[in-house]
Amino acid sequence: MNEIIYRPIGVIHTPFSEAKDMPIQPAGAQGTDGWIELFPEFALGLKDVDGFSHLVLLYHFHMSEGYSLEVVPFMDDTLRGVFATRAPKRPNPIGLSVVRLVKIQENRLYVKDLDIVDGTPLLDIKPFVAEIDNRETTASGWLSEKAMKFRTKRSDDRFD
Amino acid sequence: MNEIIYRPIGVIHTPFSEAKDMPIQPAGAQGTDGWIELFPEFALGLKDVDGFSHLVLLYHFHMSEGYSLEVVPFMDDTLRGVFATRAPKRPNPIGLSVVRLVKIQENRLYVKDLDIVDGTPLLDIKPFVAEIDNRETTASGWLSEKAMKFRTKRSDDRFD
Repeated sequence: MNEIIYRPIGVIHTPFSEAKDMPIQPAGAQGTDGWIELFPEFALGLKDVDGFSHLVLLYHFHMSEGYSLEVVPFMDDTLRGVFATRAPKRPNPIGLSVVRLVKIQENRLYVKDLDIVDGTPLLDIKPFVAEIDNRETTASGWLSEKAMKFRTKRSDDRFD
Repeated sequence: MNEIIYRPIGVIHTPFSEAKDMPIQPAGAQGTDGWIELFPEFALGLKDVDGFSHLVLLYHFHMSEGYSLEVVPFMDDTLRGVFATRAPKRPNPIGLSVVRLVKIQENRLYVKDLDIVDGTPLLDIKPFVAEIDNRETTASGWLSEKAMKFRTKRSDDRFD
């Protein structure tokens, strides 16, 4: 299989018109409001979604062109393998964010904790389920000392 | 943007030759060994990955053809919106699993807790970071009573 073809199912609307100054992870975007426009032909798939407090969004990093297998991540000064980072410039630039669901009105989902650029094409919505998605005991490699800082840090321009 | 084109970066090897009898989530696949063949041209991107105990895998549900916006999920008898489920037949059939990393040898990653069919095309590897990916207080809608059962249940054939 050489090519896998997906099509956007919607668009993510946020206050961030560019990657600069954007929170670099949802945990650092606490309270940032935005909304998801799911294209109307998919609205039937939203049944029962309103029972979940958190959703996993998969989306296409449409601002990213090309990639490197080694990158200097934000908050770091060392070249790391791209698969040891969450950098948007990846071989397949798929983004993953967990957001809080506020409410759903027809094909619009109002959400919080967005770390996503305005206009980003949405690929999938999955329910976040703590029993499936949480892991209690983990090691975070080079990120272990830096991870807590995600809650406050903002992006710089290295991923523009 | 109409089409988004990705290419597999590797192949996931597991003991499960078909979806039937497969654990339906990694939490139900505790201890299931498998390995990821990352195509050699991406091996440089694995630098520093060995410091992480858990990885997020994104992959293409290559056995899924077509989709419905409403599905009867495993362990349920009610039609649910597909975006309120983790069913593989989705508008964009992208799978998401958190697995335990055992070791890396060159371009092979040995992992545990796989709920993935053998031969699945890999799209991305991201480091799992508890501070980014865990959520402590969540509501799980229709899944709230059923979620704990993921730890023991096996799939039936409804997603073949």
